Amino acid sequence: MIVHQETLQCSTTGHGDVQDLTQAVAAVVARSGVARGLVHVHVVGSTAAVGTIELEPGLQRDLPELMDRLVPPHETYYHELTWHDGNAHAHLQATLLGASATVPVRDGQPVLGTWQQLVLVECDVRPRQRELVVTVQGVPSQS
Amino acid sequence: MIVHQETLQCSTTGHGDVQDLTQAVAAVVARSGVARGLVHVHVVGSTAAVGTIELEPGLQRDLPELMDRLVPPHETYYHELTWHDGNAHAHLQATLLGASATVPVRDGQPVLGTWQQLVLVECDVRPRQRELVVTVQGVPSQS
Amino acid sequence: MIVHQETLQCSTTGHGDVQDLTQAVAAVVARSGVARGLVHVHVVGSTAAVGTIELEPGLQRDLPELMDRLVPPHETYYHELTWHDGNAHAHLQATLLGASATVPVRDGQPVLGTWQQLVLVECDVRPRQRELVVTVQGVPSQS
Repeated sequence: MIVHQETLQCSTTGHGDVQDLTQAVAAVVARSGVARGLVHVHVVGSTAAVGTIELEPGLQRDLPELMDRLVPPHETYYHELTWHDGNAHAHLQATLLGASATVPVRDGQPVLGTWQQLVLVECDVRPRQRELVVTVQGVPSQS
Repeated sequence: MIVHQETLQCSTTGHGDVQDLTQAVAAVVARSGVARGLVHVHVVGSTAAVGTIELEPGLQRDLPELMDRLVPPHETYYHELTWHDGNAHAHLQATLLGASATVPVRDGQPVLGTWQQLVLVECDVRPRQRELVVTVQGVPSQS
Repeated sequence: MIVHQETLQCSTTGHGDVQDLTQAVAAVVARSGVARGLVHVHVVGSTAAVGTIELEPGLQRDLPELMDRLVPPHETYYHELTWHDGNAHAHLQATLLGASATVPVRDGQPVLGTWQQLVLVECDVRPRQRELVVTVQGVPSQS
């Protein structure tokens, strides 16, 4: 049984930046030596999310627009009344999308559809340096 | 330590089809020999979701209606402007719900409430053949 | 390889009660002896959710208000037409947020941001006694 963990760094441009993590995560899986198991991708912090989507330029704009329609930036929030940092919607969007995603590993690779990518969604209102923790658990090919 | 993985096939009738996976997943857990651990259920592709709900006929209709209210089929989406395949809302609904769910395994069974089922939610606009990857990790009963 | 599982009990005050699970989960991780791996937190039942958020008093009110705006209590639901238990919105909110969260374990601790907590979100319309299953999988420090 292998438990392999790596930390990745990722610079975002701020609210609505959706970045492709697929290749970086596949590389961690390859380095882990796991052939069959699971890979878990987690973003540290409460104003960003990790998920899966077909990351083509259309949906890359549609997803942040949807989140701003569901959780509008200029709504009145109790968080804002206290903290005045203008990012209550970022916290709520991140909670709604979730801070992590888990994907099966089969034949040494993350199992994703042809048009399905692992992505980081920046919800905060300014550029951020993000820490991602990737954990791979499973067995090598001979097991 | 056991790492057991199976692929299930599932035919859906198209947008709004919510199917019960609970028995099929419990059968995979039973075949795995895992008594204590986790089971992860993942749908391959970017226009379907996996989650938990009380799957009675009322909520079976309420969930797809809610998703269509939150992410309307006939909104203007950038994805649609490029691809003209009429399923931008399906992609966004699937991302919002998530492509996988993880449930504890205890005494050789998935731990779910009496009225809590594992479900596949078809978001795409046409019938699809879905591939589900079920991964069970844990220890047999004597551990 | 360690697979450690504990059940926690939690009393909620009803709809909109958001409780901090972080310390209780960190204590389970400490008792497990896992230094590197994953911890999975799952609420049994279909009208509560588990997730991550910065749990300060503002967002503690904002999150339930957001969920009631997205999935209003007094909408017409098919579930209600059959069951008349007034909690269709609770089921749908719980499904949207998800019944579980998985967080990496590093150096024997859950990896969370400074302002990022693991929380239980009660969606049901009355006080409930909740069962949480916490599963820790990973390796001890010498591995």
